[in-house]
Amino acid sequence: MKLQQGQKLLFIGDSVTDCERVKPEGEGLFGALGKGYVSNIDALLQSVYPELGIRIVNKGVNGNTVRDLEKRWKTDVLKQQPDWLSIMIGINDVWRQYDTPFIKDWHVYIDEYEETLRKLIKETSPHVKGIVLMAPFYIESNEQDAMRRAMDQYGLVVKQIAEEFNCIFVDTQAAFNDILRNLYSSSLAWDRVHPTATGHMILARAFLREINFDWNK
Amino acid sequence: MKLQQGQKLLFIGDSVTDCERVKPEGEGLFGALGKGYVSNIDALLQSVYPELGIRIVNKGVNGNTVRDLEKRWKTDVLKQQPDWLSIMIGINDVWRQYDTPFIKDWHVYIDEYEETLRKLIKETSPHVKGIVLMAPFYIESNEQDAMRRAMDQYGLVVKQIAEEFNCIFVDTQAAFNDILRNLYSSSLAWDRVHPTATGHMILARAFLREINFDWNK
Amino acid sequence: MKLQQGQKLLFIGDSVTDCERVKPEGEGLFGALGKGYVSNIDALLQSVYPELGIRIVNKGVNGNTVRDLEKRWKTDVLKQQPDWLSIMIGINDVWRQYDTPFIKDWHVYIDEYEETLRKLIKETSPHVKGIVLMAPFYIESNEQDAMRRAMDQYGLVVKQIAEEFNCIFVDTQAAFNDILRNLYSSSLAWDRVHPTATGHMILARAFLREINFDWNK
Amino acid sequence: MKLQQGQKLLFIGDSVTDCERVKPEGEGLFGALGKGYVSNIDALLQSVYPELGIRIVNKGVNGNTVRDLEKRWKTDVLKQQPDWLSIMIGINDVWRQYDTPFIKDWHVYIDEYEETLRKLIKETSPHVKGIVLMAPFYIESNEQDAMRRAMDQYGLVVKQIAEEFNCIFVDTQAAFNDILRNLYSSSLAWDRVHPTATGHMILARAFLREINFDWNK
Amino acid sequence: MKLQQGQKLLFIGDSVTDCERVKPEGEGLFGALGKGYVSNIDALLQSVYPELGIRIVNKGVNGNTVRDLEKRWKTDVLKQQPDWLSIMIGINDVWRQYDTPFIKDWHVYIDEYEETLRKLIKETSPHVKGIVLMAPFYIESNEQDAMRRAMDQYGLVVKQIAEEFNCIFVDTQAAFNDILRNLYSSSLAWDRVHPTATGHMILARAFLREINFDWNK
Amino acid sequence: MKLQQGQKLLFIGDSVTDCERVKPEGEGLFGALGKGYVSNIDALLQSVYPELGIRIVNKGVNGNTVRDLEKRWKTDVLKQQPDWLSIMIGINDVWRQYDTPFIKDWHVYIDEYEETLRKLIKETSPHVKGIVLMAPFYIESNEQDAMRRAMDQYGLVVKQIAEEFNCIFVDTQAAFNDILRNLYSSSLAWDRVHPTATGHMILARAFLREINFDWNK
Amino acid sequence: MKLQQGQKLLFIGDSVTDCERVKPEGEGLFGALGKGYVSNIDALLQSVYPELGIRIVNKGVNGNTVRDLEKRWKTDVLKQQPDWLSIMIGINDVWRQYDTPFIKDWHVYIDEYEETLRKLIKETSPHVKGIVLMAPFYIESNEQDAMRRAMDQYGLVVKQIAEEFNCIFVDTQAAFNDILRNLYSSSLAWDRVHPTATGHMILARAFLREINFDWNK
Amino acid sequence: MKLQQGQKLLFIGDSVTDCERVKPEGEGLFGALGKGYVSNIDALLQSVYPELGIRIVNKGVNGNTVRDLEKRWKTDVLKQQPDWLSIMIGINDVWRQYDTPFIKDWHVYIDEYEETLRKLIKETSPHVKGIVLMAPFYIESNEQDAMRRAMDQYGLVVKQIAEEFNCIFVDTQAAFNDILRNLYSSSLAWDRVHPTATGHMILARAFLREINFDWNK
Repeated sequence: MKLQQGQKLLFIGDSVTDCERVKPEGEGLFGALGKGYVSNIDALLQSVYPELGIRIVNKGVNGNTVRDLEKRWKTDVLKQQPDWLSIMIGINDVWRQYDTPFIKDWHVYIDEYEETLRKLIKETSPHVKGIVLMAPFYIESNEQDAMRRAMDQYGLVVKQIAEEFNCIFVDTQAAFNDILRNLYSSSLAWDRVHPTATGHMILARAFLREINFDWNK
Repeated sequence: MKLQQGQKLLFIGDSVTDCERVKPEGEGLFGALGKGYVSNIDALLQSVYPELGIRIVNKGVNGNTVRDLEKRWKTDVLKQQPDWLSIMIGINDVWRQYDTPFIKDWHVYIDEYEETLRKLIKETSPHVKGIVLMAPFYIESNEQDAMRRAMDQYGLVVKQIAEEFNCIFVDTQAAFNDILRNLYSSSLAWDRVHPTATGHMILARAFLREINFDWNK
Repeated sequence: MKLQQGQKLLFIGDSVTDCERVKPEGEGLFGALGKGYVSNIDALLQSVYPELGIRIVNKGVNGNTVRDLEKRWKTDVLKQQPDWLSIMIGINDVWRQYDTPFIKDWHVYIDEYEETLRKLIKETSPHVKGIVLMAPFYIESNEQDAMRRAMDQYGLVVKQIAEEFNCIFVDTQAAFNDILRNLYSSSLAWDRVHPTATGHMILARAFLREINFDWNK
Repeated sequence: MKLQQGQKLLFIGDSVTDCERVKPEGEGLFGALGKGYVSNIDALLQSVYPELGIRIVNKGVNGNTVRDLEKRWKTDVLKQQPDWLSIMIGINDVWRQYDTPFIKDWHVYIDEYEETLRKLIKETSPHVKGIVLMAPFYIESNEQDAMRRAMDQYGLVVKQIAEEFNCIFVDTQAAFNDILRNLYSSSLAWDRVHPTATGHMILARAFLREINFDWNK
Repeated sequence: MKLQQGQKLLFIGDSVTDCERVKPEGEGLFGALGKGYVSNIDALLQSVYPELGIRIVNKGVNGNTVRDLEKRWKTDVLKQQPDWLSIMIGINDVWRQYDTPFIKDWHVYIDEYEETLRKLIKETSPHVKGIVLMAPFYIESNEQDAMRRAMDQYGLVVKQIAEEFNCIFVDTQAAFNDILRNLYSSSLAWDRVHPTATGHMILARAFLREINFDWNK
Repeated sequence: MKLQQGQKLLFIGDSVTDCERVKPEGEGLFGALGKGYVSNIDALLQSVYPELGIRIVNKGVNGNTVRDLEKRWKTDVLKQQPDWLSIMIGINDVWRQYDTPFIKDWHVYIDEYEETLRKLIKETSPHVKGIVLMAPFYIESNEQDAMRRAMDQYGLVVKQIAEEFNCIFVDTQAAFNDILRNLYSSSLAWDRVHPTATGHMILARAFLREINFDWNK
Repeated sequence: MKLQQGQKLLFIGDSVTDCERVKPEGEGLFGALGKGYVSNIDALLQSVYPELGIRIVNKGVNGNTVRDLEKRWKTDVLKQQPDWLSIMIGINDVWRQYDTPFIKDWHVYIDEYEETLRKLIKETSPHVKGIVLMAPFYIESNEQDAMRRAMDQYGLVVKQIAEEFNCIFVDTQAAFNDILRNLYSSSLAWDRVHPTATGHMILARAFLREINFDWNK
Repeated sequence: MKLQQGQKLLFIGDSVTDCERVKPEGEGLFGALGKGYVSNIDALLQSVYPELGIRIVNKGVNGNTVRDLEKRWKTDVLKQQPDWLSIMIGINDVWRQYDTPFIKDWHVYIDEYEETLRKLIKETSPHVKGIVLMAPFYIESNEQDAMRRAMDQYGLVVKQIAEEFNCIFVDTQAAFNDILRNLYSSSLAWDRVHPTATGHMILARAFLREINFDWNK
């Protein structure tokens, strides 16, 4: 297990991360971590490694793009002084290009996305023990679908930055693709974006596998 | 225009038809017709043909399949004595096979669908001046998508029954396909099923074209 | 069609324009354009001309008079940099003289109305590709009715300013008059001001006719 | 004053009478009489004639026509054993012909109106000390307005029945006409039907004058 | 009638005046004047003297004492520039001495009451055409009751100031005493302070009598 | 202490007893006993005599008169098989005569009150170990007040029945009178009926004194 | 993995099972399975074994004891025809003896508990492929705590019945005990009964281990 | 009785003190003192010593630790100028160490607790007539329980400071221990912290005994 005794792991992202987490803290009891994969990861870590005392913080905010992350980076990441940082961003950067195509102010194209994300990682990397980059995803099995193709490209950017800065990369799209061989996308997310309980567990498991979590410990 | 002075046109269907229409009446002022294509059709008819006095009734119910329609057919169709009847059903019959694949009690497979729909049309046909059959649709441009393929088959059943009983057929899928050449599905329906305002107007226009509505009158 | 590829069309006005549009943006999915004629125009444009990518923004605010428009003109019109601007204002300017006759501070008499509207058009005209002036209206068939007479005079002012600045003029009162020959005012607006779904479609159709929208395209 | 010590006066009618009265009782403290003319009449009677102990009951129901009154007559009138009965009905009977002209099931035409009202009065007359018939009204000053003309005819029916059965007749339309010489209809009722506080006071005063109420007592 | 064409009459006071009036304006349609005696006075004035165009404004605020009135006097009275001003204050000044006797900070004793009220009248008198002083009241028939005795003394202060500055004095306590000979206090106000609909009509009538309102005009 | 190990004590009455108790059970945790004197008695008994395991049940219902108690006596008293029964009823029987004097159907006059109460006690007495009769009260210090005089008479009836059937009598009026020498009625109950927290503690203490509760145990 | 292709697994129990599941169905999308261990089990099964198509149904009901299960057994278990059945009951049977000790009607003592549970298992066993018995638990580390001792005895009964009928036994208390060595009870359940997200994951993992679920598959 | 005529007694603390008291005042009628022991103390004092006119103020705030008290001490204690001050704090200081053990920022360890509390008492002591220190408590009968052991240590700190500054000490833990011999903790507080009505009465009685309150006066 890559996480060690007493470390603090902070998650930042969009609505897939947020999931009604308590604001502004993003930690505590009574559903403070929200109802999504962050809560699942916390519950699995505490169930299997209660002796490690890992502290989980959720700083997801609905509707965020990487442009929004940049604005709140100082407050919501740097000042929190996490040991580990996990980022999953990019879904809205792409989605707005497809659901509101005429409102171009709301789109974050791939160059801005890459540049901003790289800048944030570069700035933060020296201050933390490790960074996890979770690719944005689209729960659509057709690889030729226009939005799926775009999301795959954003995912590729994330993968490259992960390699560049020696981050852990979580291939969320691959995790969903595995399941999509057996289940139609609607059973994982009606809008192909916001996961059901099963969808969030898929994300949690993909994350935990990359940090060497051992279910059978 | 196929509708004539003082006729009553009743719409029945699922959530795409319902759209928060007032229950049980399904007619009147103050949004009683709901917020979807039925209200658009009414508004366009009254705007262009106010002298005809066409009476519109909305009997859509969220979540209905053709099996549900059969149960309320006597009350919600026959007792209403409409001159014209419009039916759009089948989306939930198919969708449940894809979003809750393990709950087979909720699926209405194509044989039951065809048999039930034919029975209802046969029984009702002698009592009305005309029937409009609107195909169920799936706002997905990929024709190889599993659910799209299934929906196309249900749509074909509707088309055949329309021919068999000399009904007006509205090819809603074709109407959406036209637009999907320019707009991605997310801008017409986040879940590819429940249309935005634009999606409902596409349905209304497809319907009105088949009854020879003349915008420029 | 007078609107061209990628243009932005902004509507400003009072409660007839507002119709629960989302604030402050006035654009986006999920009913962000409100439930009135602006949403209808958007839905009809996207249904028939999806390839043009027209961007619609709704900046109506309940209860506004031309005096209120002036206060928010910089923020809600000029800073938005629309290509086309549509204005429908004046109903409250007149109505307050009739429903709260003793609160004279709330009345905007015709001289102030004309002067303010002309000033706004003059200031904005150089910055946009086109302006549409929609006359204020009163859904009352009796031309001798005191408030109808007043509204007609305000409408005349709008028409004159339209000619003066070469704007497109939409004669909304004439559009309603057409329908009032067949339908009593109560079926279009209980208070003769706030239109039903049919009333809003009448406004949308009157607007679209003036910009050469082609339903049959 | 025509009302005497300890008598019970029951009002029945539609939404103009109802005004959020408590159901089913229609009497008691804490706004049980609603917020309209019935409450005004009660307040004025208790203020000026507290020694008489007049008991007021409000049995108005929103949306009622004379057809609806007939259905609940036994329960809401006869079983209540009032000494005096006041009826104001007919607005919806007429209005539905104008605001939802195509839903003819909802219309109560003048023959049915007259026949039903006469039957009810005839049946009740022997059991009460007095009946007050308040004409239905339409707060529209133009006598040539289609709905005003219709309402005047229904009012005439009421007046004739009042004479026939020796009831007290309250000419509510005349009371409003008096005020409409000075105030525009919108200041008394936005939809020309549901009165403002002033409109309800006009009704109360018209009623009280006919029963010889003395403000200066 | 003492009020003349086009004059503005402003009411200020505590919860008996407030009665859910709209804030901050205190005037307009749709119950903006609240549900108490102010609304009754407005309705009676418009019903009988519609030609005068009297403008009524309600600036009552729940829980106010004369100490609170002083704080908002500039904004809520002087800046409003009324022609006539009506003040009813003092109930809370007394009541807090009886319902929360140990919280002495909340009490306004008679010397402070008199001094403050006199100061406000003196300051305002030159700027208005007339002032109406309505005595505070306590709907308790036992003159020896401790709180009733206190309220009578505050009422006496009001009467003296009225004489001193030539204001119209409305003896609200006397008006209630009249009715209390026939009705027990509970039927006019459960807590002997907040009037029922009847209680508010008694206040309205007492006020209107002093300004020579003529019901039979 | 008159209550013994494991006994069940049931309270029945009106809104003073009810105080938002949970329905229908009237016992359990989380405020199930309501917020009034019943909850206070339970809390004091459990605090001082936890070893006795006294079970308290609250069957108060808002607005009840003795006529209402009779209707639900079988279900809410006899079937519950309490060891001890406490009854406080009569406030509404009297109050309705004073707050809604013209609605005589709602009044329960003293003969009916006495007869009904006696019948209930007679019927129940053989089945329980003891009955506590709490007098109805009116928190008004003036003994000449009309409603206080009436309540005192009802209280006298209760006292006589208590003697007749050898019940414990709790003189609630006397308990309040004690306090009224120092505190004005408004500080114990704004409407002189529904007690504040202090008022309920006065009732609890009066009750407990009669059953020989020992605070200092 | 003991569950096989297409099988239906039904959970029944109390509030720990219920967790706001949708009623009456207890299955479907959108949180229909509630927010507790049942949802976790479903999410983990679908994430790891999507090809098996296991159907999960949640029939937990807040506050239930084994006495309540018996009443709804026919409807909620037998008629559902599950392949596998999981039961966790007994917490309320014990808890009521400790939190409301005087209300003995609410207690289910160990003999009744054992007898009822055995009867249900005996009756159901022939109709299903397998039964899982999850012991009731109390998240308290002190084995000498009175309620913990009682719960352990109920758990022993469950274990014995499991052996008797060859059911799978899930030792939930042991699973919590493991964690309680590192975490204090408050961090798993404020009231030592209703688990946090972590507590539910501990239950899910304990269950899944007994059916040979393989996280690393 | 240690409290004397006209004195003001202020309570400060956490959620056990707060109990939905009105903010910011913390005094007045209508439940302004909350639903806990503060309200009980007030009710008992007014019931037995109404002639003393003791003024009670509640300044409890949910979730507070001694660190939070320090921040609002000036406003909520010193500026209020109480004669007597009662403090009960420390539960959250301890609890956070047990329910959210990994969020160390939220813990207030015993040294900081002692130092801060001593500083506040030292600073305030000269300005008041008396201070009551109520120990924090944990309604758990097992003295070896980890959190109970910690709470006992914090309680010891409070006792020592009380002796040091000559304050009245209320041993709340001892009061609960007395009851725990007969009742299990769940019947006094489901989470062993927030008392039921009985739990609050135990606190009130423990407090009142220390100030020589005489129930039988």
